[in-house]
Amino acid sequence: MTRFASTTSNLRSSEIRDLMSLATKPGIISFAGGMPGNDLFPIKEIDEIYNNLSLTEKQLAMQYGPTNGLPTLMESLSAYLKKKGLPVEKNRILITTGSLQAINILAKAFIDPGDSILVENPSFIGALSAFKSYQADIIPVTLNSDGISLTALEKAINKAPALPKFLYITPCFHNPAGYLYSTSLKHELIQLMAGKNIPIIEDDAYSDLFFHPEDSERLTPIKAINPEGIDVCYTGSFSKIIGPGLRLGWMLVPPHIYEKCELIKQSFDACSPSFTQVLADKFLRSGAIYTYLDTVRKAYKTRAEAMFSALEQHLPAYVKWEKPRGGFYIWLQLPEGADATEILKKAIDKGAVFVTGKTFDPEGKKNNCLRVSYCNTSPEMIMKGIPEIAGAIREICG
Amino acid sequence: MTRFASTTSNLRSSEIRDLMSLATKPGIISFAGGMPGNDLFPIKEIDEIYNNLSLTEKQLAMQYGPTNGLPTLMESLSAYLKKKGLPVEKNRILITTGSLQAINILAKAFIDPGDSILVENPSFIGALSAFKSYQADIIPVTLNSDGISLTALEKAINKAPALPKFLYITPCFHNPAGYLYSTSLKHELIQLMAGKNIPIIEDDAYSDLFFHPEDSERLTPIKAINPEGIDVCYTGSFSKIIGPGLRLGWMLVPPHIYEKCELIKQSFDACSPSFTQVLADKFLRSGAIYTYLDTVRKAYKTRAEAMFSALEQHLPAYVKWEKPRGGFYIWLQLPEGADATEILKKAIDKGAVFVTGKTFDPEGKKNNCLRVSYCNTSPEMIMKGIPEIAGAIREICG
Repeated sequence: MTRFASTTSNLRSSEIRDLMSLATKPGIISFAGGMPGNDLFPIKEIDEIYNNLSLTEKQLAMQYGPTNGLPTLMESLSAYLKKKGLPVEKNRILITTGSLQAINILAKAFIDPGDSILVENPSFIGALSAFKSYQADIIPVTLNSDGISLTALEKAINKAPALPKFLYITPCFHNPAGYLYSTSLKHELIQLMAGKNIPIIEDDAYSDLFFHPEDSERLTPIKAINPEGIDVCYTGSFSKIIGPGLRLGWMLVPPHIYEKCELIKQSFDACSPSFTQVLADKFLRSGAIYTYLDTVRKAYKTRAEAMFSALEQHLPAYVKWEKPRGGFYIWLQLPEGADATEILKKAIDKGAVFVTGKTFDPEGKKNNCLRVSYCNTSPEMIMKGIPEIAGAIREICG
Repeated sequence: MTRFASTTSNLRSSEIRDLMSLATKPGIISFAGGMPGNDLFPIKEIDEIYNNLSLTEKQLAMQYGPTNGLPTLMESLSAYLKKKGLPVEKNRILITTGSLQAINILAKAFIDPGDSILVENPSFIGALSAFKSYQADIIPVTLNSDGISLTALEKAINKAPALPKFLYITPCFHNPAGYLYSTSLKHELIQLMAGKNIPIIEDDAYSDLFFHPEDSERLTPIKAINPEGIDVCYTGSFSKIIGPGLRLGWMLVPPHIYEKCELIKQSFDACSPSFTQVLADKFLRSGAIYTYLDTVRKAYKTRAEAMFSALEQHLPAYVKWEKPRGGFYIWLQLPEGADATEILKKAIDKGAVFVTGKTFDPEGKKNNCLRVSYCNTSPEMIMKGIPEIAGAIREICG
């Protein structure tokens, strides 16, 4: 009998793997993945960057780098984050192997087995599995379309057996719900959390992918509001703005939290890939990122609009959903008692896949909801696949 | 007061960072780092590989990949490992973000706080900090120049408060000691461990960097001996055979251990960088790696021989050391009571750095020893820097 650590019993069985294999089944129309469109990657720009690297830069790309990140990338990323109004001077940047690693490091820095933490319900599956792997007691808090329910949050804090270790939220283009917090809710949240000694982990992987430039105020991260008396740990990613294959993300956190996180990062994988850091730095520094983002925002908006129109045309009226203002996802809410797993089986028969709601429920139960993503599917395939999902819903729910 | 997890108090202060900054101080001759020589990276080969990638391959490089690794790389790596006699069919490969991540994942899979584990003394600092971060009770076992002391190991197992969770060893070109286990010792170790229900983590990052082709039998990993009744978790790395900047390593482990490790990997960083996996696959698949290894083996051997001759010429006779038969490191043992930290201060004044012995002592104490590496320093600089270190030793130890 192999004697594993007791924490390993808390690991979810491989739902993400199963999803991935479903999403890539040949011939199937996939609304399951959270990956950028293959056809949208900045291949030409990366080619040009690679072929203009000097020998010294290429050697740097092959070598170990500092644990916190390559100095050139930290500089260009710092400028990029400053443009978003983020307080880069009073905080420290740690470059991580994707933003999931940033979340995992923060989880390790804060969670002792049995500690309570607060998350939105639904919530990002990657974060949930990281929190579970440290044996957190996860307290789910209702998420509304304008942000986390403050009444539910206050109640959850008061009811918690001990002061929760942190609150994990995705205020901008939520995964899986697609919601964008309202400005007023963010301010009320700050008021509620001030002085409570509960850090906020603000996951901001999608805010560059907005569809409406007039939303700019509403896109402002809580970290950029720089609230007095709250430790905001801001995480971001290159996955959605260059490519996930680079495996690069970051955290921007107060110095005393940074110190712990750097040590954890060091013991995790010593440093993030220099090879892709060199490329990401040039992509930011040259300004190529801004032209590129203009292009992909339009492409994702076109895909989203194709999906809006297909959903409006084909879904039964009892399915509730909101049009996201950016990001990758739409959240469909079905009548009480509906079972997204049954719908998924039917949908697969018809040739389309999505992700069931319970995947994003910290308790793995609530399943009368589902996530469809439009990020990696062409408008044509969206128009072809959504009717199949609508058909599957009708067959199961009537 | 920020409420960190109790585990964070176990993290070592940033010795690795301090080392790195010392090792890169301008003008200083560094024998401190464990990084390959910048001038030795296969830049031309990688250029050629990159520029011959198809559009589809480049898109794949930018995308998320499966948690366990890109199928093409798993295939080519499997062939590469099979050539070393490793039992790839009966085990599973997990591609990791460097081999430190492989070690960290195994540590998380096995260690509950307070669990005993067995390591060689001295031992790799990266592994030690991973083990400490899970609050292991680390039991050091004496390392001799032909391998771990079996008497000491048996005593340690019998004295341990509970059955240790694993034994972590580096049988081939040890870091920091440079030692290579003898074939007979490996077989005796297998006899000792058989049926004890203590898995072995075999760290094999350096075995391709041998100086003497006639050592081939002695280079055989314990995993390749495929001992009955012992779970051997074999870890390896592309860091020393292509470049650490790719951040790619692997583990080859029995299926039931693989299952846990894949879930941990998923919660750590979802997958390893696709970008560098695509490059590593082509490097293996094209056979470029074999020509490249021939070249670097010669280069490291030349550096090692320059260091042998400088040490023979300049070191006082009371310093004991062995000529490594491959790898990156030489371990200098000074008389009882000597303090490598004092010597290091003197050496820095003279313009040369190395790593103090206590860095590699699980208890952070034993300091009458030090590590000099020849991997990233030219023969000319070795001839110039070693006399300074010898001078510093004489000034402190007489």
